[in-house]
Amino acid sequence: MSTLLESYAAGRWFRAADDGEPLLDAATGEEVARISSRGLDVAAMVGHARRTGGPALRSLTFHERAALLKALAKHLSERKEELYALSVRTGATSRDTAVDVDGGIGTLFSYASRGARELPNDTVVLDGGPERLGKGGTFVGRHLYASRPGVAVQINAFNFPVWGMLEKLAPAFLAGLPTIVKPAGQAAYLAERAVRQIIESRILPEGTLQLLAGGPGGLLDELTVQDSVAFTGSAHTAGILRRHPNVLDGGVVLGVEADSLNCSILGPDVGPDDPEFDLFVKGVVTEMTVKAGQKCTAIRRVLVPAPMAGAVVEALAARLAKVTVGDPRNPQVRMGALVSLGQRDEVRKAVEALRASAEVVFGAPGGTASIDGDAERGAFMSPLLLRARPGAGEPHEVEPFGPVSTVLTYDGIEEAVDLAARGRGSLVASVVTHDPQVARSIVLGLAPWHGRVLVLDRDDAGESTGHGSPLPVLVHGGPGRAGGGEELGGIRGVLRHMQCTAVQASPDLLTAVTGQWTTGAGRLTSDVHPFRKSLAELRVGDTIASGTRTVTLEDIGHFAEFTGDVFYAHTDAEAAARNPLFGGIVAHGYLVVSLAAGLFVDPAPGPVLANFGVDALRFLTPVKAGDTIGVTLTVKQITPRGGADYGEVRWDAVVTNQEDRTVATYDVLTLVAKTWPAAPQA
Amino acid sequence: MSTLLESYAAGRWFRAADDGEPLLDAATGEEVARISSRGLDVAAMVGHARRTGGPALRSLTFHERAALLKALAKHLSERKEELYALSVRTGATSRDTAVDVDGGIGTLFSYASRGARELPNDTVVLDGGPERLGKGGTFVGRHLYASRPGVAVQINAFNFPVWGMLEKLAPAFLAGLPTIVKPAGQAAYLAERAVRQIIESRILPEGTLQLLAGGPGGLLDELTVQDSVAFTGSAHTAGILRRHPNVLDGGVVLGVEADSLNCSILGPDVGPDDPEFDLFVKGVVTEMTVKAGQKCTAIRRVLVPAPMAGAVVEALAARLAKVTVGDPRNPQVRMGALVSLGQRDEVRKAVEALRASAEVVFGAPGGTASIDGDAERGAFMSPLLLRARPGAGEPHEVEPFGPVSTVLTYDGIEEAVDLAARGRGSLVASVVTHDPQVARSIVLGLAPWHGRVLVLDRDDAGESTGHGSPLPVLVHGGPGRAGGGEELGGIRGVLRHMQCTAVQASPDLLTAVTGQWTTGAGRLTSDVHPFRKSLAELRVGDTIASGTRTVTLEDIGHFAEFTGDVFYAHTDAEAAARNPLFGGIVAHGYLVVSLAAGLFVDPAPGPVLANFGVDALRFLTPVKAGDTIGVTLTVKQITPRGGADYGEVRWDAVVTNQEDRTVATYDVLTLVAKTWPAAPQA
Repeated sequence: MSTLLESYAAGRWFRAADDGEPLLDAATGEEVARISSRGLDVAAMVGHARRTGGPALRSLTFHERAALLKALAKHLSERKEELYALSVRTGATSRDTAVDVDGGIGTLFSYASRGARELPNDTVVLDGGPERLGKGGTFVGRHLYASRPGVAVQINAFNFPVWGMLEKLAPAFLAGLPTIVKPAGQAAYLAERAVRQIIESRILPEGTLQLLAGGPGGLLDELTVQDSVAFTGSAHTAGILRRHPNVLDGGVVLGVEADSLNCSILGPDVGPDDPEFDLFVKGVVTEMTVKAGQKCTAIRRVLVPAPMAGAVVEALAARLAKVTVGDPRNPQVRMGALVSLGQRDEVRKAVEALRASAEVVFGAPGGTASIDGDAERGAFMSPLLLRARPGAGEPHEVEPFGPVSTVLTYDGIEEAVDLAARGRGSLVASVVTHDPQVARSIVLGLAPWHGRVLVLDRDDAGESTGHGSPLPVLVHGGPGRAGGGEELGGIRGVLRHMQCTAVQASPDLLTAVTGQWTTGAGRLTSDVHPFRKSLAELRVGDTIASGTRTVTLEDIGHFAEFTGDVFYAHTDAEAAARNPLFGGIVAHGYLVVSLAAGLFVDPAPGPVLANFGVDALRFLTPVKAGDTIGVTLTVKQITPRGGADYGEVRWDAVVTNQEDRTVATYDVLTLVAKTWPAAPQA
Repeated sequence: MSTLLESYAAGRWFRAADDGEPLLDAATGEEVARISSRGLDVAAMVGHARRTGGPALRSLTFHERAALLKALAKHLSERKEELYALSVRTGATSRDTAVDVDGGIGTLFSYASRGARELPNDTVVLDGGPERLGKGGTFVGRHLYASRPGVAVQINAFNFPVWGMLEKLAPAFLAGLPTIVKPAGQAAYLAERAVRQIIESRILPEGTLQLLAGGPGGLLDELTVQDSVAFTGSAHTAGILRRHPNVLDGGVVLGVEADSLNCSILGPDVGPDDPEFDLFVKGVVTEMTVKAGQKCTAIRRVLVPAPMAGAVVEALAARLAKVTVGDPRNPQVRMGALVSLGQRDEVRKAVEALRASAEVVFGAPGGTASIDGDAERGAFMSPLLLRARPGAGEPHEVEPFGPVSTVLTYDGIEEAVDLAARGRGSLVASVVTHDPQVARSIVLGLAPWHGRVLVLDRDDAGESTGHGSPLPVLVHGGPGRAGGGEELGGIRGVLRHMQCTAVQASPDLLTAVTGQWTTGAGRLTSDVHPFRKSLAELRVGDTIASGTRTVTLEDIGHFAEFTGDVFYAHTDAEAAARNPLFGGIVAHGYLVVSLAAGLFVDPAPGPVLANFGVDALRFLTPVKAGDTIGVTLTVKQITPRGGADYGEVRWDAVVTNQEDRTVATYDVLTLVAKTWPAAPQA
């Protein structure tokens, strides 16, 4: 008997009380492992996540969490051969495995990088600017995202055991949520191995990742209002989850990524000789055959202008004929096996349903011809292309989760969009066109029905990641039938796991709550210029109120001449007088900020290493000759950088004139050494 | 018999086929109107919204929609006396009415203003920057929000017939969704009057607002994947809606704002003599009595440090004793009637449940004493304050939707947060404290459990809008028991009604799809400097590639001296050499952008009126003496301003050096005249 997979639960590996069910090699039918969760204490798992994993995780800043994800990605990267070897047993070719294993690790790297770059080195995320809620500025609002003190349950599909797990884990982990992952049974041995690698690394705090190998038992019964379930799989199972009392009435947040009848549209501008024609054909065949079509994002509907249908079918058939099906261990094989015989039965049933309104134009519906495959026990099938009869309904309703697509024809862009919409919401659509107007019309028509739309043409084809690949930085998920969930999308995917809360307070208390200085809050002044303070010494609110400088007409003229910016508003009194906004010569905006820097800078070498940028500069009141300006610079936010001997300091800058009117506001961004004098180099 | 309320359906006023049910004056019990939807064709309403209202609305840009909301707000503002008169009949005092009627109109104004200021003058919203998806820059991603081609059904509670309607209508309208509003029966005559004013104004496109007065019939049966339902009301009704097949499996998006056991916490730092003590007491009494406590945001749980309980109860009781209850037509009355006798029965039942673990410390549970009120037919009741016994459970479970609050005690900040969390998710909490550390600890503890947290102290009290007031610019809604929905929050409330879609394309086609120039897309050059083109003539992609200028050591030294910015990195070769980032003298960042302006500017008077700002300036490569820089300026986005003779042009600026390395990137913001020469003034 093969190994019984273990669950990782409440800090230890758990072996079920029975022998479990066998999991079979997709190509050979041999037993790979057995699976069971009999006797597993799921309540203890939830409790462990809540009491151990969650608090440990949420005590880390986003940057610290990101650093752990990066270390984890490296760790897995060094051990991926082990995962590759198991991946073959799911029926995956090496191309399929790259999508799953390398794609999963890449998602970790991406979230590590985004987390460090785009999230603060803190435990809450501020969203949007302060909202002044009263005229006097004493009452201010601000939105922040806070971590939920809950558990993220992740229920994954069989097709991407590694990617599916890591793409859900990474954003939840950054958000401060401990994960309980329940992989689909069929390929659970691969997910289990990856979890084992992760647990052995001891990189993630204990309790932040647990594995439930086998049936979920009463897991959902344990969840409450701060918990969430992210599910990828069939609409049927999604429906069961939606009906769970804890979801219906208990406040458990459920995200679903389910059935999706994705389409690819050949633009009406594309002729058989255009490069886009080949790109279209290649794209469809790739999506039909990668992972033997067992992808939520695969192309199920091929929409082509009616006059092009014959040429498209012919080209698709020719290309499909070259697809070699067989045991993925054979390097000649281009398409492996379906995950199981049961899965193949499902696909065949779906094909039968499709044949009510479509005819098979390529492939043998019952065919199992394969290279090196076990004809009886291997779940092989031929790619199948169907062509729908006019008015066909089934292609918009039936999802064959295998290497099957149906060609439909359209007449005009509006019908193309209408047909796409008949899928009632999909994860992704692609449009192959080189015409800007076609691209705009179709994409904007498709957008409300899709989470992602790919426009493919000769210009992006070389770098395109293709129709079927969700990317960590882009939203993955779709409305309606696709489940209505959203995953990934860079930091969006993190914030989705957090609670957005509006905080209203005085500027001082809002500063205390958010850790970011808020206009109107007290300023800390001292004899020490803040440019002389290291990152360790600087405090939010530290301020330098500069001296003043009177701007003369000579200054303006000189600056114009020196920089070459001789715009009439700075140089020609008569013309400037006719400018509706100025009514006379004004100082250059760039002169104002340059002089302001001259007023606030502390010149000697010190911890401030560089000004690396300026944000949100607005010129609010023109500066005219004779005006006297001063600037107030206040530490707004301090962001230490892990692994560097400096951090970023964001300064609030306000330039005012002699009437105390605000001339300009902006944020100055500087790099400041963590210590000063700098610590001696090792 | 009183008037039978009509529905506004499919372009005409519909009168039901029967006499309907009576709606009674809350204070006098007189019949105000009757209500019925018998015979109403709800399918026709949905079809009308889909085919007439939606397309008309979505053909307008966000700015045009915002302008209509503003006109509508003005229209209603001029007619609010009529609404005031009907509001009294719901039992509302003039203070209550201001919250409902003026609050609703204010929400329209706020959304009109935000829509014009923060949304583009277009029909899609771009979200986040472009994502470079390949090293070569030929494959780029961007997220956009698109309008759903659906219908927004809005089911409102009885307590705010005007605000409840307008706060849902405004963001949905901006998002391009036509509304079907179903007010609660009890006060539907007020909502109906407001809708009548709106329809008579002919400001909104036909089909963008319909009214369903009476039972909803099969309204939800008509909805599909692009439609949404926003519901405010009881958890019980929310549960029914959640179980509708079109919500469970049909992709209809449901937003809920339901029961909420909001709390107010007296900080452990506050003593009886602190101003915060009085603010706390006043806040609780206000929330208990405004709208006779019939507010989703009212304070149901009063959390105080154990040693303060006696003082707080005493102070609350003293203040509550001054609350005059009676017919809101009498100006002496401070608290009016509940909306109906039935509602009062509900509240009394809830109070009985609370008394299982709490005792009444102020008010008579059965009391109906009132000024001018009809003792039998008026739904009057005394404010009731309860004090919970230790370990009480009911106060965290039972929501008395009337003038009732329960005092509970806590010991330490952690317990305060734990008690708040026992509400299992609420709309709002308030913390009354003047201590920054207390504010931070409690707010961050409360945040995951609430949509809004108010921190009240002596500094913001003067301008605070109070615990119970949702504001259009802040999120309204809460997790868990509060329904898990989100409304308002400024533009967040608009985007929530739209589909977020990731678009992947070449820079050229992404530019075509989004209408915004994308790095890597073609640039349009011509003999005409783009500064010489009016807004009408400018095109996205119009470019000026400047000449070059070599920056000398003298330039740097001169700029330092002239501006006073004598930072050592610009002036002291030896010290600059030791700077870890520069390793030698570098030009000021401000010098670089000043010289760049000198290179790209076209000096003569023309359509470009002013540079009003700079966004996202980043210095990427230091400029050293001898480096030669040039700048490329490209039109990124063109935003005509309605009602002004100019618009905003956002330019993409890239400064490069002699090695073609990027020195700086930023956006330059200018105001450009719509025509040039300027049209003659009327």
